[in-house]
Amino acid sequence: MMELQTVRYGEDGLFILDTTKLPRNLEYIKMETVEECFDAIRTLKVRGAPAIGVAAAYALVLAAEEARQTSYEEFYEDFKRAKDYLAKSRPTAVNLFWALDRIDRMVQKHRGESPHRLRTAIIDEADRIKQEDVEMCRKIGEHGLTLLSDGMAILTHCNTGVLAASRYGTAIAPVYLAKERGTNIKVFADETRPLLQGARLTSYELFHSGVDVTLICDNMAAMVMKNKWVQAVFIGCDRIAANGDVANKIGTYGLAVLAKHHGIPFYSVGPTSTIDMEIATGDEIPIEERGAEEIIYGLGYQIAPEDVKVYNPAFDVTPNELITGIITEKGIVRPPFRENLAKLFAE
Amino acid sequence: MMELQTVRYGEDGLFILDTTKLPRNLEYIKMETVEECFDAIRTLKVRGAPAIGVAAAYALVLAAEEARQTSYEEFYEDFKRAKDYLAKSRPTAVNLFWALDRIDRMVQKHRGESPHRLRTAIIDEADRIKQEDVEMCRKIGEHGLTLLSDGMAILTHCNTGVLAASRYGTAIAPVYLAKERGTNIKVFADETRPLLQGARLTSYELFHSGVDVTLICDNMAAMVMKNKWVQAVFIGCDRIAANGDVANKIGTYGLAVLAKHHGIPFYSVGPTSTIDMEIATGDEIPIEERGAEEIIYGLGYQIAPEDVKVYNPAFDVTPNELITGIITEKGIVRPPFRENLAKLFAE
Repeated sequence: MMELQTVRYGEDGLFILDTTKLPRNLEYIKMETVEECFDAIRTLKVRGAPAIGVAAAYALVLAAEEARQTSYEEFYEDFKRAKDYLAKSRPTAVNLFWALDRIDRMVQKHRGESPHRLRTAIIDEADRIKQEDVEMCRKIGEHGLTLLSDGMAILTHCNTGVLAASRYGTAIAPVYLAKERGTNIKVFADETRPLLQGARLTSYELFHSGVDVTLICDNMAAMVMKNKWVQAVFIGCDRIAANGDVANKIGTYGLAVLAKHHGIPFYSVGPTSTIDMEIATGDEIPIEERGAEEIIYGLGYQIAPEDVKVYNPAFDVTPNELITGIITEKGIVRPPFRENLAKLFAE
Repeated sequence: MMELQTVRYGEDGLFILDTTKLPRNLEYIKMETVEECFDAIRTLKVRGAPAIGVAAAYALVLAAEEARQTSYEEFYEDFKRAKDYLAKSRPTAVNLFWALDRIDRMVQKHRGESPHRLRTAIIDEADRIKQEDVEMCRKIGEHGLTLLSDGMAILTHCNTGVLAASRYGTAIAPVYLAKERGTNIKVFADETRPLLQGARLTSYELFHSGVDVTLICDNMAAMVMKNKWVQAVFIGCDRIAANGDVANKIGTYGLAVLAKHHGIPFYSVGPTSTIDMEIATGDEIPIEERGAEEIIYGLGYQIAPEDVKVYNPAFDVTPNELITGIITEKGIVRPPFRENLAKLFAE
């Protein structure tokens, strides 16, 4: 069983795992051009903030090869055009811009050097971005793993595993780390309607990796908790406010209420970069509403009248009082969150 | 906009609304033979306990026409064979046996009469079964409606409306009754994974009837409650224990926990025939677990690895302490349920 890698760069070129083909087919696509990278990001073949950042960084290696190899100035002109082009592939992906800008700054720092040396420097920087992601996920996993022991089971939602990152993932990182060490943590994975990331991606990657995973529909989580089959809930986070309110995939808030009712600890897991200290509470986090067709037609056939009204929020906000702890690469933050999150950044 | 009727019998014959074609096509199929009725019940074209009972009753009208019209004895022999055959269409549908037995007893009471007169008597009895169902649903609706007023909204799960009964339905009956009287009750309908009865049937029938309905995924109910968009939860029931524990479609228990957290009253709605005083608590109610393929393939394409473990309970049990009241045709039963349910049957 080969380890899954969302983005792989080596002597044989740049490869991307096409997550849109899962769970039926495990296909790595070779990226030959910047256009192909743009397309892979735009069409969600590669998804998840860290994975998108890494893919974009390596796309700039291809950009360096396509650029004129004449002078620094001409090389940089072409490189910069490719960078601006890639930035348009997912207009709201912060990690995409961050990775592109980081490579850009590095190139500018090597101003005047030969295109050949610049290409090598870009590869090194992309490798560092990927390696830093792996390290961050590993640290998150280490902290998370202090809460778990052999034979325990967690419930999770959406996809926060290796298919959203370079390795380990975030909320699922403790499970993979445990596996490496011969410790078994079971996982119950919500299918995560409407887009089914939990079924298509999480149950796939855990099953592929030999983890004991059980797939459920979202509305079965309450029974799993009532049956005392899980000892913790581990979910990801899209954005965390300064008071510890967590915005995450729709369904997270309901799980937090259920966990509280059943006395099950509820952890939000993610890098400190998702904590936004500029936002006082979750009330300030805008919730994206998506189209009705995602629910009515998103399963391959029509499940409701085409003109029926639909409410389809992509995210929800879980208030801090329902959260036991926030697991980051710097450690586990516990209540009172306002104080302890501030401390995290003061260190 | 014609009123939906799951089973219709008139001078033009017996017609069944094919619910498997919804929401794309509204098709009434003419039943020409007992075999066709058997098939319609077996393949779930007609579903929902009351509707199945009514369909089976009218199927016996066709049986009376197909039977030898010679003597009572020969007529009854054929009639009885058809009845036993129909009883095998859904081997666990209590309402099916009840309706067939009721017609059978009526025929035996008219022992010796002419096949022609027996056929008329069967039509009358089938009409009565249907009319009694309509009356019971209307009474349930009347009691439920005392809890609601113009402009209020309820959340519901699965299908408990007209497509499961002869008219009005159970948990949705108050909404239809309100509509008849010019009062508007809004409905939020859970899609109800894995079989999507809420999307395919509930959102369809309410939309068709001009009720203000909003379809959501099951995992969005918590947000609907948090947004204060609903003032009550109305759900059906498959079986109620003597202490008020309610077995119902998977997802009900989670909704009850969420409703309690948000201070929203939670009502279970159904005829007194679903109350089983022989069962002391919900722990005694067996929970059917269904196949993995329903979740993995049930949406028209494969959403998870084919061999992944799946937990797929068809029902869950909601403990009585999460239930505000049980709405029946005899009135609303409130806690303490053990005492008050016993009183209901003593009256």
